[in-house]
Amino acid sequence: MSDVVMLAHGDGGALTHELVRDLFLRHFPNQTLKGLTDAAIFAGPGGRLAVSTDSFVVNPLFFPGGDIGKLAVYGTVNDLAVSGASPLYLTAAFLLEEGLPIADLDRFAASMAEACTEAGVEIIAGDTKVVGRGNLDRIFINTAGVGVVPETLHLGYSRLAPGDRVLINGSIGEHGMAILAARENLAFAGQLESDCAPLNGIIAELLREIPREVKIMRDLTRGGLATAAKEIAVAARCDIYLEEAEVPVRPAVKGAAELLGLDPLYLANEGKFMAVVSAPYAEDALTVLKTHPLGRSARIIGEVSDGGGNLYLRTPFGGTKYLDMLVGEPLPRIC
Amino acid sequence: MSDVVMLAHGDGGALTHELVRDLFLRHFPNQTLKGLTDAAIFAGPGGRLAVSTDSFVVNPLFFPGGDIGKLAVYGTVNDLAVSGASPLYLTAAFLLEEGLPIADLDRFAASMAEACTEAGVEIIAGDTKVVGRGNLDRIFINTAGVGVVPETLHLGYSRLAPGDRVLINGSIGEHGMAILAARENLAFAGQLESDCAPLNGIIAELLREIPREVKIMRDLTRGGLATAAKEIAVAARCDIYLEEAEVPVRPAVKGAAELLGLDPLYLANEGKFMAVVSAPYAEDALTVLKTHPLGRSARIIGEVSDGGGNLYLRTPFGGTKYLDMLVGEPLPRIC
Repeated sequence: MSDVVMLAHGDGGALTHELVRDLFLRHFPNQTLKGLTDAAIFAGPGGRLAVSTDSFVVNPLFFPGGDIGKLAVYGTVNDLAVSGASPLYLTAAFLLEEGLPIADLDRFAASMAEACTEAGVEIIAGDTKVVGRGNLDRIFINTAGVGVVPETLHLGYSRLAPGDRVLINGSIGEHGMAILAARENLAFAGQLESDCAPLNGIIAELLREIPREVKIMRDLTRGGLATAAKEIAVAARCDIYLEEAEVPVRPAVKGAAELLGLDPLYLANEGKFMAVVSAPYAEDALTVLKTHPLGRSARIIGEVSDGGGNLYLRTPFGGTKYLDMLVGEPLPRIC
Repeated sequence: MSDVVMLAHGDGGALTHELVRDLFLRHFPNQTLKGLTDAAIFAGPGGRLAVSTDSFVVNPLFFPGGDIGKLAVYGTVNDLAVSGASPLYLTAAFLLEEGLPIADLDRFAASMAEACTEAGVEIIAGDTKVVGRGNLDRIFINTAGVGVVPETLHLGYSRLAPGDRVLINGSIGEHGMAILAARENLAFAGQLESDCAPLNGIIAELLREIPREVKIMRDLTRGGLATAAKEIAVAARCDIYLEEAEVPVRPAVKGAAELLGLDPLYLANEGKFMAVVSAPYAEDALTVLKTHPLGRSARIIGEVSDGGGNLYLRTPFGGTKYLDMLVGEPLPRIC
């Protein structure tokens, strides 16, 4: 490990994993944390509960399609949802720089309230800290969330089997591209909009229809689709093949990514998730997703095969590319 | 309200209250949050649960008696404990500045692990974000916690009645004074040590002995004893009288506070709580506290009387001073 914290330690890719594995898990070696799932599931009195936490440091604070407030609610709601939990309550902790306009804080709080209504959750506990000018860039928001996990639901890496299908609920890279374009004032910024949205509704539909056939889900935030898929492959000790031609990417995102030399497979999403579903039920799952507003562009994008934790991309020309987790140029403060 | 966020919005005193009431509660008007308790209690499947969140921005990161890691664990454990919950699990979210020495992060994580063992809790979910140099001062840590609240326990402001006694588990002002002295490199810094400690053990003892006679508890962090007592008086619509001669203050804290023109009643504590207990059981409560290592200097320091939300200090000379919440010079980044 390097001697100092680097931006890449926070990009959700290989260095984040190294930091979590070699530092945090060494000090906190409990089985639940070791699972490295989006939310931690534990036995509460009378049932299984899930908790998750996420800090939001996105820059710019306002961006096409959302703001830091919306993101802070959706982010934690989605981490709970992909873990199979119904999100119930959030906590919100505000870190504020002296001098932040109260009007901005008011807009973020209004956004959060709106996002909570949309997702059907409530913020029931909070905290506010203020630090002097120059000690924090305007505002960071942390949310933690609690949800209930149905007793009958059992998601888990160990359930993956060759032939399982990989589904996605829509096109990738929109959040990451919108943030970058807004931040750098790129000419095409106007055509890009963050996909940030609460996924608990669409996931509830999926789990209602085929509760036993969904094996694992991940939301595709920092590190994007490729990093999440690679994490699943490693954790499940199998290989995953993605079909490049099937992965939906909007033309505006594709164009912008090409211009900037970025791969949409590694760009952050804030309203997208992947689900691994048993093959016989993949078409049913696709139908469920497609009938939900957040799943209109849903697709079956790949499948699981025997292997040792590799992720491959089959190109339209018959080639196969090996994909790793995000490494290299980090895109800081994307969420 | 002012147009911009000021340091005093984060000091836990009058301006923090204004911000919470006029901005956050306007956007999040749910009954649980309105309670403004240290932790929020909600009905989980099969029992009552409590959640709490706190961000830690203390400066310096290492101080006599602790560091930001310990504080981050104890702070949330204590918020749960004074709400009557047995803390079970924490989440930990790290906000890191690019360039932070990994060795420091390692020490904070080790501190957190040690503090978790001491408090009997586990960190089961986490998050790491990194921002560029200059966008955050080294490290901030957020913890959120979940605990279980016994069905038979009912703490609440509405239970306060004239004659109830106010107890404290020890001497005040040590954390605040230690931080200030360390930060300003004051000559007497060596004699001061933070009182930071997990309160769930001593509170469990108290609730085991007299579960029905404890009416409300608060930990005495930002804003100190006076602010917490005033909050209770306002919320319970009663008056509270504190006996100045009974409030324990160590000579080193007293001397340092006098030198700096600070009042120990408003200095932050990280291992102290106040409890309002029915009068006939106050001596029993005191005995329980005194038998615990964290309660050796416990005292009965005041009582509740009819009134409209005022806090008074009876001086040893027979006078009575009106006390308000912390207003004025904020002591930023005390926790």
